[in-house]
Amino acid sequence: MSDDERSGAFDHLFTAAVRDGLGEEGYGSWRSIDEPDAVSLSFGFPYPESFPHDELVAAAEAVFEEERDTALQYGGGDYADRLVEVVAERERDRGIDCGTENVLLTNGATHAIDVVCHTFLERGDEVFVEAPTFMGTLKLLGNYGVEITGFGNDADGLRVDAVADELERREEAGETPPKLLYTIPTFQNPTGTTLSRERRERLLDLAEAHDFVIVEDDAYGALRYHGEDLPPLAALDESGRVVRTNTFSKTIAPGVRSGWVLADEEILEEVTRMRAGGANTFTQGVLGRYCTEGPFEENVAELRGRYAERRDHMLDRLEEHMPPGTDWTEPDGGFFVWVTLPEGIDTDELLPRAAEEGVTYLPGEQFFPDDRGEDCLRLSFSHVSHEEMERGIEALARATRSRMAEH
Amino acid sequence: MSDDERSGAFDHLFTAAVRDGLGEEGYGSWRSIDEPDAVSLSFGFPYPESFPHDELVAAAEAVFEEERDTALQYGGGDYADRLVEVVAERERDRGIDCGTENVLLTNGATHAIDVVCHTFLERGDEVFVEAPTFMGTLKLLGNYGVEITGFGNDADGLRVDAVADELERREEAGETPPKLLYTIPTFQNPTGTTLSRERRERLLDLAEAHDFVIVEDDAYGALRYHGEDLPPLAALDESGRVVRTNTFSKTIAPGVRSGWVLADEEILEEVTRMRAGGANTFTQGVLGRYCTEGPFEENVAELRGRYAERRDHMLDRLEEHMPPGTDWTEPDGGFFVWVTLPEGIDTDELLPRAAEEGVTYLPGEQFFPDDRGEDCLRLSFSHVSHEEMERGIEALARATRSRMAEH
Repeated sequence: MSDDERSGAFDHLFTAAVRDGLGEEGYGSWRSIDEPDAVSLSFGFPYPESFPHDELVAAAEAVFEEERDTALQYGGGDYADRLVEVVAERERDRGIDCGTENVLLTNGATHAIDVVCHTFLERGDEVFVEAPTFMGTLKLLGNYGVEITGFGNDADGLRVDAVADELERREEAGETPPKLLYTIPTFQNPTGTTLSRERRERLLDLAEAHDFVIVEDDAYGALRYHGEDLPPLAALDESGRVVRTNTFSKTIAPGVRSGWVLADEEILEEVTRMRAGGANTFTQGVLGRYCTEGPFEENVAELRGRYAERRDHMLDRLEEHMPPGTDWTEPDGGFFVWVTLPEGIDTDELLPRAAEEGVTYLPGEQFFPDDRGEDCLRLSFSHVSHEEMERGIEALARATRSRMAEH
Repeated sequence: MSDDERSGAFDHLFTAAVRDGLGEEGYGSWRSIDEPDAVSLSFGFPYPESFPHDELVAAAEAVFEEERDTALQYGGGDYADRLVEVVAERERDRGIDCGTENVLLTNGATHAIDVVCHTFLERGDEVFVEAPTFMGTLKLLGNYGVEITGFGNDADGLRVDAVADELERREEAGETPPKLLYTIPTFQNPTGTTLSRERRERLLDLAEAHDFVIVEDDAYGALRYHGEDLPPLAALDESGRVVRTNTFSKTIAPGVRSGWVLADEEILEEVTRMRAGGANTFTQGVLGRYCTEGPFEENVAELRGRYAERRDHMLDRLEEHMPPGTDWTEPDGGFFVWVTLPEGIDTDELLPRAAEEGVTYLPGEQFFPDDRGEDCLRLSFSHVSHEEMERGIEALARATRSRMAEH
């Protein structure tokens, strides 16, 4: 519905935060182009051959067979409960001191972030984020009417020094500190960068000194292709102020829409209260069975190998085809490469041309809470074949060169 | 965690609405007793033999076979889309003028109510409800820090005359009108009563005159056992101010955790924005297949027959066993009978004795936003066998008589 068709009949009954955002596109409406003939490097889609179709059907059969009366009832059966244990165990394997009392299963990672926001954020509150950061979280924060301040990333992740400077400045000026700092410290979306160990510790010190909560989104943490695992923020934290959000979207499939919040028990209690509503015990039971009896871990190991190839292939093709002056990140895991085009080419303007040449991507601006990022774009290497990747990067190079020629 | 063990370390960072409710039990914590040897008439559980286990497995197989690449991807495939069409078609069959542009699929009915609240409610806003009403909605409204006013039900449902009086009084006194009125007009939870046609029309007139939104929760509307269907509020409404919430929990299974919001397009746009996060396309695809190719309608028809028997059996046993002075409702549909005990017996106090005698129920107080309902209780006839029902009602009668003997 375009704005001039709106009657606005009910606008005055919406919350102030909703009224602030009237006419804005919602979650899931990203600035992109749908061009069927072009290779899409736009979205962080897992490659569909990785989905465990047969295993999920077999799991459903087994769960229904064993839990005839409870599997589809309110509350679910044992397999649904076992999924909570699987999550707690996996998080303990990452070095986090936790049990099932710290885990709330959610309908995906964004739902996890949403209930955390619902617990902490009121209109006018201050939130710090990386800039660029996951566009979904930016949309979601918009729903709470909060003030968002973005801090840059470099090869070692979030510029924690810049965060420290701003916190100090605010303290001296008597300005409001943030309530939350939202970060994707490992294989960040969209840059693919990872926060160094040293910066992780400094960030935790800052959270403690300035009394804010860190939301650690670790959606890609299980998918490392190079180097050694770093401890999650929640594993280094001793204060209980790191709230972790995570998902099975990248390790099983997005369609199962299952994630979790991991938090200090007192925080989790309130998050659980604010969640409201029951769980999809059908899905949770199926995943509980798949994760305990199925080949979940083996599949994740295979995913790592496959995605590593795709990542290498994308970096090689960028090296081969992109004109001088193009920069890009070299992620050790996750799905994304962040590209900065030469001569400050506007990636939003370039997109129709790129689509015509045969590739689509997400322009960089939508990953920023402010107006930055116009010469950047995000590429996803997760779901196209080698041949499509080749065609896609060649098309991006052609579009970029033809735009450079006009300068 | 009991209150005296709480450190309260993060309380100051929570929202004011969260702080208001610290220490309160969350959604899903109902005042009941878990007594394995007693017959539970406490919860609105469908009877498990009704769950379409094999049909859902068959649907999953078919969806994965036909939609190999999209069924588990973000966005889902055609069957997930078809579920939206199924919902719109069923709502049109109820007489509501709507299309897929009016439907948002949600993770169950409570999630549907929650996103509607998130769109309209701010702390301090006024909300009208039936009293008694669904305890889940009362908990959920508590998360928004709103002021709740309850209005009684009689055999024709919500006392709309009392609502009218209060609206008029507020208008004359210059007091704040409600933003929302939440109602379950058909086979209400917990009373089983149904709002008459005349009251439906008057309620809509009041909403228009006093400019509030009606949230019509129709979770039980498809399960009528006696009498003729009445048009839903949304079918009678011409202003667009009725927002409907509904669920497949009672017609397929609670575990599939699938519901929807049906609303005017301008309202639905904002509700969709406030929803944030993706859909469980796995479940939606399976249900889309089951509802279009599976025996969904036939199963609902069978459910009506089975629940009608259960309802009749409960009413007969109440008539047979309960002491004089006991009152109960006679629902034409849904899952519940609302019982008022003689001599003002406190149902919360009586519960341990009833459990000892062999039955559990939900005491009435938790269905009220205030302190009423202490001599009432809710019985569910949905999920016990005839033999269990017999034992349960006999036990309730024994407990009641023994308490009366002490008066």
